[in-house]
Amino acid sequence: MPPNGGPITRVAILGATGYTGAELLRLLAGHPAVEIALLSSEQYRERSVAEVYPSFAGIVDATLQAPDPDRVAAVAEVVFTALPHGAAAPVVRELLARGCRVIDLSADFRLRDPAVYARWYAEHPAPALLREAVYGLPELYRERLPGARLIAVPGCYPTGALLGLVPLARAGLLREPVIIDAKSGTTGAGRSAKVEQLFAEVNENFRPYAIGEHRHSPEIAQELAAAGATAPPLFVPHLLPVSRGILSTMYVRTGATTPPLADLFRQAYAGEPFIVLRGEHSPPELREVRGTNRCAIGWRWDATSRHAVIVTAIDNLGKGAAGQAVQCLNVALGLPETTALATPALVP
Amino acid sequence: MPPNGGPITRVAILGATGYTGAELLRLLAGHPAVEIALLSSEQYRERSVAEVYPSFAGIVDATLQAPDPDRVAAVAEVVFTALPHGAAAPVVRELLARGCRVIDLSADFRLRDPAVYARWYAEHPAPALLREAVYGLPELYRERLPGARLIAVPGCYPTGALLGLVPLARAGLLREPVIIDAKSGTTGAGRSAKVEQLFAEVNENFRPYAIGEHRHSPEIAQELAAAGATAPPLFVPHLLPVSRGILSTMYVRTGATTPPLADLFRQAYAGEPFIVLRGEHSPPELREVRGTNRCAIGWRWDATSRHAVIVTAIDNLGKGAAGQAVQCLNVALGLPETTALATPALVP
Amino acid sequence: MPPNGGPITRVAILGATGYTGAELLRLLAGHPAVEIALLSSEQYRERSVAEVYPSFAGIVDATLQAPDPDRVAAVAEVVFTALPHGAAAPVVRELLARGCRVIDLSADFRLRDPAVYARWYAEHPAPALLREAVYGLPELYRERLPGARLIAVPGCYPTGALLGLVPLARAGLLREPVIIDAKSGTTGAGRSAKVEQLFAEVNENFRPYAIGEHRHSPEIAQELAAAGATAPPLFVPHLLPVSRGILSTMYVRTGATTPPLADLFRQAYAGEPFIVLRGEHSPPELREVRGTNRCAIGWRWDATSRHAVIVTAIDNLGKGAAGQAVQCLNVALGLPETTALATPALVP
Amino acid sequence: MPPNGGPITRVAILGATGYTGAELLRLLAGHPAVEIALLSSEQYRERSVAEVYPSFAGIVDATLQAPDPDRVAAVAEVVFTALPHGAAAPVVRELLARGCRVIDLSADFRLRDPAVYARWYAEHPAPALLREAVYGLPELYRERLPGARLIAVPGCYPTGALLGLVPLARAGLLREPVIIDAKSGTTGAGRSAKVEQLFAEVNENFRPYAIGEHRHSPEIAQELAAAGATAPPLFVPHLLPVSRGILSTMYVRTGATTPPLADLFRQAYAGEPFIVLRGEHSPPELREVRGTNRCAIGWRWDATSRHAVIVTAIDNLGKGAAGQAVQCLNVALGLPETTALATPALVP
Repeated sequence: MPPNGGPITRVAILGATGYTGAELLRLLAGHPAVEIALLSSEQYRERSVAEVYPSFAGIVDATLQAPDPDRVAAVAEVVFTALPHGAAAPVVRELLARGCRVIDLSADFRLRDPAVYARWYAEHPAPALLREAVYGLPELYRERLPGARLIAVPGCYPTGALLGLVPLARAGLLREPVIIDAKSGTTGAGRSAKVEQLFAEVNENFRPYAIGEHRHSPEIAQELAAAGATAPPLFVPHLLPVSRGILSTMYVRTGATTPPLADLFRQAYAGEPFIVLRGEHSPPELREVRGTNRCAIGWRWDATSRHAVIVTAIDNLGKGAAGQAVQCLNVALGLPETTALATPALVP
Repeated sequence: MPPNGGPITRVAILGATGYTGAELLRLLAGHPAVEIALLSSEQYRERSVAEVYPSFAGIVDATLQAPDPDRVAAVAEVVFTALPHGAAAPVVRELLARGCRVIDLSADFRLRDPAVYARWYAEHPAPALLREAVYGLPELYRERLPGARLIAVPGCYPTGALLGLVPLARAGLLREPVIIDAKSGTTGAGRSAKVEQLFAEVNENFRPYAIGEHRHSPEIAQELAAAGATAPPLFVPHLLPVSRGILSTMYVRTGATTPPLADLFRQAYAGEPFIVLRGEHSPPELREVRGTNRCAIGWRWDATSRHAVIVTAIDNLGKGAAGQAVQCLNVALGLPETTALATPALVP
Repeated sequence: MPPNGGPITRVAILGATGYTGAELLRLLAGHPAVEIALLSSEQYRERSVAEVYPSFAGIVDATLQAPDPDRVAAVAEVVFTALPHGAAAPVVRELLARGCRVIDLSADFRLRDPAVYARWYAEHPAPALLREAVYGLPELYRERLPGARLIAVPGCYPTGALLGLVPLARAGLLREPVIIDAKSGTTGAGRSAKVEQLFAEVNENFRPYAIGEHRHSPEIAQELAAAGATAPPLFVPHLLPVSRGILSTMYVRTGATTPPLADLFRQAYAGEPFIVLRGEHSPPELREVRGTNRCAIGWRWDATSRHAVIVTAIDNLGKGAAGQAVQCLNVALGLPETTALATPALVP
Repeated sequence: MPPNGGPITRVAILGATGYTGAELLRLLAGHPAVEIALLSSEQYRERSVAEVYPSFAGIVDATLQAPDPDRVAAVAEVVFTALPHGAAAPVVRELLARGCRVIDLSADFRLRDPAVYARWYAEHPAPALLREAVYGLPELYRERLPGARLIAVPGCYPTGALLGLVPLARAGLLREPVIIDAKSGTTGAGRSAKVEQLFAEVNENFRPYAIGEHRHSPEIAQELAAAGATAPPLFVPHLLPVSRGILSTMYVRTGATTPPLADLFRQAYAGEPFIVLRGEHSPPELREVRGTNRCAIGWRWDATSRHAVIVTAIDNLGKGAAGQAVQCLNVALGLPETTALATPALVP
């Protein structure tokens, strides 16, 4: 039963057996104002979700279906699309045309400029929708979410970077290139079979990749510029041998010392339910956010090099994807923002 | 607010910063019928719990205290004691004398015979209480829990073994020695600083230990015999490079083929909210129970060797400790048994 | 230069970029009596081996080629075939016909009875060769290796099981079914892209598989019977979240107590360069054999259940595959048996 | 037998059971020009080294002794001191006074200025020796090693940073602060029992620490300044959930584009046996150097932010400690520099 005695919203998850889809299902299974009306999976069609993920046995009883827009729209008011980029946009268009609200977790509606999308991905399949989509980072765009038909949930790396940097951008402190050295767990790469993601390739290993060329770069740049940054970011991702989590260590030259940084973050995030501010001497760690929708933020000014160091930690499947999508749903529906998102991190 | 509109129970956790204590806190923080009245920690006394475990920042606001029985009894009706064996018994006696109900997670009240305790540990500090303690495995002793003043939560290894073997013992199928080959994550060894538990000692490693000599052996033997086994178990634990979980693979010679085994388990556990029965071809895996109070059970009869193979998976901190303790609390208080224990496993 | 001033043998590795092939290359790169004449890889044909495995940059300078038998036979005297089962046999036949000696690491020549092969795999593509192949476990068949044209390197699981059990079988102690509870790292499954081998599926997880049905069962049964066992084994493998290593815990009912077991192993393995006997109170662990050709063996008799517990640890890519293949080469060529195999384990 | 038929050098390792000491032993056990004359360990005194590290059973047969300078000097010409900082200096002084050559792996002789040592550690116990010690990074100071009585093996983090940055410093490209974002495996913290190094604390976790305050900062700054850097570094270490390895991602603003960077590294490291230069599109990864004395280096210039990104990977116990110490020994004794250091990395 919903906490406020209000109505139940029927939702669907398209792409329910990927890592993001499964995390959505984990969260929504405990959401009191939601009824899971349909789960789709191309790969496991006609099988029960508990067969693919035994952790749902006795908790979610559903057969995985094909993502047919008519069928989806017939049973669901809100649809979470957790499909690959490129594949999501056409489906989203069909769903919107049938009156669904869509919370999209692909990369298809995060960039506002179709030319930028074309440069990093391909010609956009539904450019008209780019103007309509609301960037689903509630800490930045909360007020636009209630009326939105289409919410584009931010990428995992951008979420970790932006929550640490936007307060600086807004304060005019990003006038020099900011370095974003990010380290992600492997679920960020999805659940497709690739040699480079095998256990024996990732375990006891660590490496950077796509230096300065990652597709999340333009998304970060777009939002930093929108917040007032006048210099571009340099984004360098690395692959961590953990299942979940992104820790971003960010560096920018500035004269702003530690106390003003602290003030900046305290003001920017006063009252935010999912932002945890850590002190100067206790930087965030990955595990404190595992399984949650939280973002832990630390900062420190180094007098010798005159650089600010900002550190953020999120769960890439939580605040970096499914958790954030549920937070967007809560805001959009006018529910308490922490509904279904209040469980503490699984530590250890 | 409690789900049934009933009263709130004030609880304390003694030893709140060990792994078991922290898991109890994680579960109880979301328990609607419980108020956390006091947390104790010798090691971190006077510090805030969020300083030790940042995952509780903004969720649990409490200062860790010394475990003074008077103070504890003044604020708490039910006390969870997550203290080392030997240290727990004297504290438990004091708390009982002051009118508290105690749910003890140490080894001090699991063995019924003080002579057995003396052989495996030391002279028992409070032997009179052994007769009173109820063995807190609800699937076996549910009806005794409501009135109990003292509940002894089973050991992690015994929980995994007994849930797989008691149905066989009751059916008269344990007339030959049963082999229990168990594999546990490292949190079973607690949070004390030991070289052998360092990351670089456990990582990329695997080893048996205490072959036939582990202190959980007599506890397993006690309960199997009580259920009708007429031959002793051989218990061999191993240390897995994972944080959480126990998988037990158990072997017993028997003529009972796969179908009767399936019947046995279905009958034994009909209606049990935390038992998940897996089919013959899909044995349990650790991660499906991570962070939960579940026990997944698989079975198979091997015609060539005429052995039954029973496999169980639990989270050693969940069903193997804190989860089971909360389940005991729910039963003892007459609450729905899954209260605060319904979240699906964190997968992946 | 070879240690004894003898000739250099030209070798080829077919399937050089799989995990077994790469481990062979790692070992042979340091072998003083061997010249690596050809490396094949279907998947990475025409690329340099250092491109696929940067760890060989500056150490092995070779372009990966197609496994054409004429070309291979033209440059190599001894060929290591690390190809999938079924694919190996036809290639091996061609190589033998061209006068090469072959050390085969597939499953194709391990079983002596074509009917057994057919039951577990498929119709055998070259049954006549089964009679000729020598089972390449030097501790059992050392004297047959020097003259062999075709050596079938044992499976990884069988190696770990047999080294622990054959001394018992020979002593007439395997008259009841022996239980082999084996736990393997992930490289045993090879380097092919499968969802179930992704990091996020294996990490923090543990599970049994193919209970009583694994294809290594008949191989273990064949060799135990040959050594005198009169009861069948029950083999249950599990998947460990480590890259390398197999630990096998084995149980058999017997009246033979600890001292006779110790004698048995000391006599069976006197002078063996790769067998490490551990005492009763210090069972083997995986990491002590990592990267080596060693097998560490422990034992203990449990008086209560009257079972012997035998534990062995090997590196599945070392003694379980590539190391054993090099040991076979050394014996076959009359070289000191530890040539290129003397490096201590990488610990930690 | 030494490769050149030369004499055998008798060596001792003080602190042989720490991770660095054990790695030294692993390498020296295979060194043909060295005889291991004495191993010391305070903690495991009078026990055999194979009891502490079973991986040495049958390979190194030695009883661990107290580190008495007279006894050590009586049997060893060269002494490797792998003792904690502060504890090493007095022992080193005694050994030098008795005529030993010392290769010290502590932090005691890396900083040239006693005032800097005092600021970061404590009053230096033997300041006169600071002038004599040669900084044991052969790629920078090879020519000074042959005559040195006292060699100070660099810290693990400084080794990874300096090998990537010194060529830039010498070319005048470090005129702005360089950011060193370094990620290290846990063995860098040694083998002492600390809660924060327990498996369950490190596993599935990742965190920065000592931001801008790590004791390796002044060592890095000292050597960069000596090479011509005119701006200070900002050094931020992180703890990786792996046993071995340091990957350092380094950022400096410069107009030097990718081709000149490539030239710079090729010239700086021509003929260096342990430096592996990776191309622009294939940055180093940790595992390619595991168990070796190699340093893999990658680079790339980002046009948008006008920053050079330099990445290095080493094994913290190899090139970052024991491997480098053996390389220093080889240079000091006039042996081929790769003696005992030629084994390829253990991959996977």
